[in-house]
Amino acid sequence: MFEFGEDKLKDECGVFGIYAPDQEVARLTYYGLYALQHRGQESAGIAVSDGRSISVHKGMGLVSEVFSDRVVDRLKGKMAIGHVRYSTTGSSLLANAQPLVVHYQKGMMALAHNGNLTNALELREELGKNGAVFQTTVDSEVIINLITRYRRDSLENALVKTMMDLRGAYALVILAEDKLFGLRDAHGVRPLCVGRIGDRYCLASESCALDTIGAEFIRDVEPGEIVVIDEEGLHSRQALSKTARSSCAFEYIYFARPDSSIDQLNVSASRRQMGIELARECPIEADVVIAVPDSGTASALGYATALGIPFGEGLIKNRYVGRTFIQPTQAMREVGVRLKLNANVSVLKDKRVVMIDDSIVRGTTSCKLVDMVKKAGAKEVHFLISSPPVAYPCYYGIDTAEREKLIANQLDIEGIRKFIGADSLHYISEEGLLRALGTEAVCLACFNGKYPIPVSNLDRGKNDFEIQKC
Amino acid sequence: MFEFGEDKLKDECGVFGIYAPDQEVARLTYYGLYALQHRGQESAGIAVSDGRSISVHKGMGLVSEVFSDRVVDRLKGKMAIGHVRYSTTGSSLLANAQPLVVHYQKGMMALAHNGNLTNALELREELGKNGAVFQTTVDSEVIINLITRYRRDSLENALVKTMMDLRGAYALVILAEDKLFGLRDAHGVRPLCVGRIGDRYCLASESCALDTIGAEFIRDVEPGEIVVIDEEGLHSRQALSKTARSSCAFEYIYFARPDSSIDQLNVSASRRQMGIELARECPIEADVVIAVPDSGTASALGYATALGIPFGEGLIKNRYVGRTFIQPTQAMREVGVRLKLNANVSVLKDKRVVMIDDSIVRGTTSCKLVDMVKKAGAKEVHFLISSPPVAYPCYYGIDTAEREKLIANQLDIEGIRKFIGADSLHYISEEGLLRALGTEAVCLACFNGKYPIPVSNLDRGKNDFEIQKC
Amino acid sequence: MFEFGEDKLKDECGVFGIYAPDQEVARLTYYGLYALQHRGQESAGIAVSDGRSISVHKGMGLVSEVFSDRVVDRLKGKMAIGHVRYSTTGSSLLANAQPLVVHYQKGMMALAHNGNLTNALELREELGKNGAVFQTTVDSEVIINLITRYRRDSLENALVKTMMDLRGAYALVILAEDKLFGLRDAHGVRPLCVGRIGDRYCLASESCALDTIGAEFIRDVEPGEIVVIDEEGLHSRQALSKTARSSCAFEYIYFARPDSSIDQLNVSASRRQMGIELARECPIEADVVIAVPDSGTASALGYATALGIPFGEGLIKNRYVGRTFIQPTQAMREVGVRLKLNANVSVLKDKRVVMIDDSIVRGTTSCKLVDMVKKAGAKEVHFLISSPPVAYPCYYGIDTAEREKLIANQLDIEGIRKFIGADSLHYISEEGLLRALGTEAVCLACFNGKYPIPVSNLDRGKNDFEIQKC
Amino acid sequence: MFEFGEDKLKDECGVFGIYAPDQEVARLTYYGLYALQHRGQESAGIAVSDGRSISVHKGMGLVSEVFSDRVVDRLKGKMAIGHVRYSTTGSSLLANAQPLVVHYQKGMMALAHNGNLTNALELREELGKNGAVFQTTVDSEVIINLITRYRRDSLENALVKTMMDLRGAYALVILAEDKLFGLRDAHGVRPLCVGRIGDRYCLASESCALDTIGAEFIRDVEPGEIVVIDEEGLHSRQALSKTARSSCAFEYIYFARPDSSIDQLNVSASRRQMGIELARECPIEADVVIAVPDSGTASALGYATALGIPFGEGLIKNRYVGRTFIQPTQAMREVGVRLKLNANVSVLKDKRVVMIDDSIVRGTTSCKLVDMVKKAGAKEVHFLISSPPVAYPCYYGIDTAEREKLIANQLDIEGIRKFIGADSLHYISEEGLLRALGTEAVCLACFNGKYPIPVSNLDRGKNDFEIQKC
Repeated sequence: MFEFGEDKLKDECGVFGIYAPDQEVARLTYYGLYALQHRGQESAGIAVSDGRSISVHKGMGLVSEVFSDRVVDRLKGKMAIGHVRYSTTGSSLLANAQPLVVHYQKGMMALAHNGNLTNALELREELGKNGAVFQTTVDSEVIINLITRYRRDSLENALVKTMMDLRGAYALVILAEDKLFGLRDAHGVRPLCVGRIGDRYCLASESCALDTIGAEFIRDVEPGEIVVIDEEGLHSRQALSKTARSSCAFEYIYFARPDSSIDQLNVSASRRQMGIELARECPIEADVVIAVPDSGTASALGYATALGIPFGEGLIKNRYVGRTFIQPTQAMREVGVRLKLNANVSVLKDKRVVMIDDSIVRGTTSCKLVDMVKKAGAKEVHFLISSPPVAYPCYYGIDTAEREKLIANQLDIEGIRKFIGADSLHYISEEGLLRALGTEAVCLACFNGKYPIPVSNLDRGKNDFEIQKC
Repeated sequence: MFEFGEDKLKDECGVFGIYAPDQEVARLTYYGLYALQHRGQESAGIAVSDGRSISVHKGMGLVSEVFSDRVVDRLKGKMAIGHVRYSTTGSSLLANAQPLVVHYQKGMMALAHNGNLTNALELREELGKNGAVFQTTVDSEVIINLITRYRRDSLENALVKTMMDLRGAYALVILAEDKLFGLRDAHGVRPLCVGRIGDRYCLASESCALDTIGAEFIRDVEPGEIVVIDEEGLHSRQALSKTARSSCAFEYIYFARPDSSIDQLNVSASRRQMGIELARECPIEADVVIAVPDSGTASALGYATALGIPFGEGLIKNRYVGRTFIQPTQAMREVGVRLKLNANVSVLKDKRVVMIDDSIVRGTTSCKLVDMVKKAGAKEVHFLISSPPVAYPCYYGIDTAEREKLIANQLDIEGIRKFIGADSLHYISEEGLLRALGTEAVCLACFNGKYPIPVSNLDRGKNDFEIQKC
Repeated sequence: MFEFGEDKLKDECGVFGIYAPDQEVARLTYYGLYALQHRGQESAGIAVSDGRSISVHKGMGLVSEVFSDRVVDRLKGKMAIGHVRYSTTGSSLLANAQPLVVHYQKGMMALAHNGNLTNALELREELGKNGAVFQTTVDSEVIINLITRYRRDSLENALVKTMMDLRGAYALVILAEDKLFGLRDAHGVRPLCVGRIGDRYCLASESCALDTIGAEFIRDVEPGEIVVIDEEGLHSRQALSKTARSSCAFEYIYFARPDSSIDQLNVSASRRQMGIELARECPIEADVVIAVPDSGTASALGYATALGIPFGEGLIKNRYVGRTFIQPTQAMREVGVRLKLNANVSVLKDKRVVMIDDSIVRGTTSCKLVDMVKKAGAKEVHFLISSPPVAYPCYYGIDTAEREKLIANQLDIEGIRKFIGADSLHYISEEGLLRALGTEAVCLACFNGKYPIPVSNLDRGKNDFEIQKC
Repeated sequence: MFEFGEDKLKDECGVFGIYAPDQEVARLTYYGLYALQHRGQESAGIAVSDGRSISVHKGMGLVSEVFSDRVVDRLKGKMAIGHVRYSTTGSSLLANAQPLVVHYQKGMMALAHNGNLTNALELREELGKNGAVFQTTVDSEVIINLITRYRRDSLENALVKTMMDLRGAYALVILAEDKLFGLRDAHGVRPLCVGRIGDRYCLASESCALDTIGAEFIRDVEPGEIVVIDEEGLHSRQALSKTARSSCAFEYIYFARPDSSIDQLNVSASRRQMGIELARECPIEADVVIAVPDSGTASALGYATALGIPFGEGLIKNRYVGRTFIQPTQAMREVGVRLKLNANVSVLKDKRVVMIDDSIVRGTTSCKLVDMVKKAGAKEVHFLISSPPVAYPCYYGIDTAEREKLIANQLDIEGIRKFIGADSLHYISEEGLLRALGTEAVCLACFNGKYPIPVSNLDRGKNDFEIQKC
């Protein structure tokens, strides 16, 4: 079996939470996760609390595969959290699925996490010295152990103390003691927002999940903030002093759904703007603009409109591509990418083509796409990328390839152009990207190596066991 | 469980065949079916022949679900045919999956069918009188019984005689006696084309399947033609005298993949042209043109370009919508369509919107989409349809709703407009559609009730058992 | 994976039928098949008729695996038939599962078969000449084609004519036109009996199935008889003239459940009597008599009682042995048989042991058992077999090994004794077996090669496709 | 669905461990668990260690269902432990399956447990006060938390300290730091024995698992002993001072496999001896002795031989009874027990019958069996039980019914006799049982309420969450 998307950055995770004693919280969480499915397809889970006891159901696969009507019906309670996890090749284990649920001295607690701690190993070691045992390799278990150890204090204080110990990127939803909590790291790298449904509140990684369940978007959770949702409504506590926000730029470029807004920026509009910036930076005389669907479409429309070149559906996506399929033999190598995308000759033949994609990771797919477009009769293929070159790994919850496998880490732009066989290649500049986003409060570490949060365990290969990022 | 797409015409079936003793025919058929998956998601099957003995594997579900590497590896032979079947609510039975494989006096035979016979019951009855027994309710079993009864003659002659008995729409691929056959009904309603891979030949419902396996498109099978593929290459026999071709118009409007060409017309270009005709027939002063994705996109792009109005991604599709999901409760009614599509406020707010879809069947989804777009802030919603009103059922292999449930059969256009709540509603005219296609050789029966092939068993409800259409 | 029991004759099939409009016929058939599960573990199926239309559910596996409450509830009707099929390594296909259900000129028909035709190929060929097609490789399809071809006549006459054409062994249950039929071949090789439940009737391969559903045993179906069950009650027609009955001796020796009675002989009592005959033919001075569980137990108890030697549980069976398990590596060879049976040292140590089994097929397991008993400390192991040597294949529905693999076909008794390593080996004589059964009306063909029904297609290896026996 | 055996004490768990760097330890563990399958059918698991890292695979179902060849092949290492868990109706969760594997300060550890702690709640609370979190409800997690907290000391010392804290019954196998450990509680309630395979050692709940993998029985682990197995061979440490051994009497009566020996007593021989004691206590003038198969067989053979009455197979067991099946409707009530057992008329008709079973829990099945035997024509039915009346719940790892549902807790013997409808009823006396076993070092708490280990949390119903016993 062969998995698609190996030449894309891997999605991270998605979280959802709701406090609504008068509603079917598990069912609403199910729909919330359904809307966040693009953030993780490996596993899904929902935990429901009645204020004392917590039930949970988790499984490998898509939300629609893991949950049946019967299962959702059995999850009764007044509040719930849910999680979808991204798909990695290696260590996809049910044991690592979330939410994580524990019994501790004061009762039960459930937690779901999107992000990645950069000091998880140090924290594990310290907890281990005090006798803690770990049954998974996910950061969530570290966080939950910290919280319970601080719990002699009030729960809210325990959360603040825990946040003071955590380093890295995290958006957390937590069920404990009749309350639902939403926590976001000091730099706000991973997204988390608050919605209102009737007179109740909910939390979600992206606003599209609020739309789906019919909730109204209220606001983003602030960097370093703890949001508390309970019978009284919505309360807030600024746990960590405010630092410069560093929202992940890739959420806008590729990860998030176009209809979501994150930290007050609409994703689809941002992408269109990236296309307009690309047009400014690199206006090409062409006959048609095409996108690598679906993530390149908005940028391509922006570019085409800005320059008055027609936009065409030059690459057609197979809408039934599953997560796995039978691997082509060596002789059928070309079949691989064609199962997912096919060139549309009627759009491409004898044309000078501008093709727009959101990013290049290893370059292996780009290479095949350029070839496919040329074989379909394109006279020229100009490849434009709506992100700067990805040259550095992410330590904040994105599964980039190893540094050596990032093509932009190995080759300069002309080298990449030759590798993929395009007539020209242009990446948007960092400045262009920032202009398109209209803000500088974003993390660009994977482009320029400037990590806003210190990363101590860079050589993670030496660790006893692999830490699961999410 | 609730199934999406209930307000769309149901896809029919897809067939594929290949003769290539020197290649892995089962694997190539797998990829061919993968490309044709949009034509049927209920079941999939592949039959492989070594010239004497035929092996088959069939199952419920998508191609990627039914076949594993091990299963495909076990299917060894020099030629193969494959089939994907559409999804109906009721009688989806493994017994009805295709290809159908039989032992008969001269050996074995396998057959896969896309289409629907209009005299199947008469033929069944006649065969029954001669002692024939039937184990399925699919037309293929009738066809195969006819062929074997005519088989005292040569196989090719038996096929000709069989075609002379069949009435209705069919594209057939058949494995028998060291040969692969492709048959198309006298009107060419359902598509079938020939490709070449190396010096071998293959058959497919749509040309996108040829592209996917790296085969070159050669030509469409002609109405009434039998194509014979074997060790000698490609031969042809015109079994039925040529009549006016009546390719199904809905293949261009909705069913076929945009990158396919059918009877020399590219699907994506045709759709774009429909948008241009719509612009001619009904130019609206608007701020943005949006599509109901994905089938309305090409027409919307054509419309937008023709009138110089910006095209925007106003409705965002959830790319992970599975075939089934948990049904929302009554209180969550709105969730239903939002799981699949969400309005993109940044594109719609305060805008005069033209929304383009390929067709309206019952109108229930259209109604929700207009409402969703309005709630997202659109000032006006003008709904344009790139097909004429669907007012008559199809008897040639498409699962239209019962006549009474077709909204255009019950209401006039103003009535439909009111029902769906749009500010204006415009369907392309039949003339406009023909202009867009550039040919009159198409079947428009579902629009105007003029059935090119006689339909005798109109009141099918009275039959002993329901005939499966495919 | 490795399958147990490879050194035993393979079970055949079991059939069940019931006519009871006022009861849940599918559920009762389920329980009937449950009781007949020992006759076939490969597949199970139930067909239910309301007099016009027939529904069917079939699947691979045990009755309890194939049917759920929901499935059984959906099978509504006034009469039903069911089938369990034995497990072979090779061609276990769902397509070959029974009952077979067909549509034909007069409506629908369902049929389930236990046995094997010896002229199936001839009949197939003849039917094929008249245009018949076959979708399976089971005899049932041949039979059903014969019936429908004779159907211009009355159904009952068609059945009589069909029986006149069939050669071989068969016990058939058939649902057609408001009636349930039970048919048994002219020699009565395979068992079939009639029971009464309330004022309704049912049919079963063995009487244990009647006991299980609370039905009263009425009588065996006679050789060559057709039993008709309908609204009027029970009718009979002697279709074929009576010949000497030849009930399969192996039903008593090994296949049937001990609590069943077949043709007026109780199976458990017969086995005990075989032990008593063995005691007469071969009284051994021993300290303990043990059985190879479970089929050797009754004979061993008979032997032990007859000679006044204690019976002991010398071999303990693992009650949780599944149908498949992970194959031991070469180094763990001994594990194989020990997973199923283990020697009980406390019974065997320092003892002179008589070990009784029902038969030896290839001898490979016997060999390991003798070794295991010796390693457990037995001073002597005398091996007694309650059947004569199996030296000829069965063509009447039993899956014996190929002739060359039957140890008794290759070696004389002293040769077998040496091969299995016993201190002495004794088989019951044919006369002793007949004395134990108290009748000569049994088929002993697998012991002496005297086939009561002619077998024409002996060299079945040359056929186009393998005929499935059942 | 309805589960069999509801009128039997529930099996507990089974454990297995092996240290053998030169062998396929996972495969051998698989076969060991296969032999212990009767001790638990709910879940199965195997953990393998290479001395540093531990891999684990667990699943719901039988060993043969949970493990495939591929899974076992992936579990590579030099030592392994395995676990099978019993089947309860309620809280069978994968999360509760064992072995439990944790990461802690010194590396990884795996543990599998058979038994039940009586101070688990106290220990949990204490650990919780120090910040421990629990993800399951099984005792194993408490034990592993104790060990890791004591781990500042040497591992062996940590185990000794842990055993000093534990109260209740336990047989434990543990993988940690290049060693395999076997621990048994101070009273030796649950069994654990040591075997040698080549020059390596292994541990198992019962000796039948040693036989199966070809290992030689060495000795039982002593009460309060820690056995350490590593590269150096076998070492021992007496962790707790020796107290009177109290092996569970029910292991001999019902749970253990007949071919096992526990604490130097062969199970099958013990059961036969119980029959002889019953003959002494209650000699009945009868025509035949029958057993309730399979657990009553050995006692019945002992009784029959002692009194010179023939033993007959009066009740025949369906060898294909699965774990679940479709529940009979009210009208088919009698079907229930007949699916599992059927009366053999030829043995019972017109006979005075002695029927022997190992125990009566609720009496509901006994009642039906007596009725079935009478309906089969028995003149008299005398019911003899090879255990004293079960009147008290077990807190040491056996799932007895709640106290009120034990029939012997509610009725005297004459009352029970009337309830089950036997002509006479006799239980073996405690003295008779002890005579049969030849030792007084057994736990009889479920018969006489004298609990050898204090039970503090008697009213377990009040706990926050149900403690899983195993």
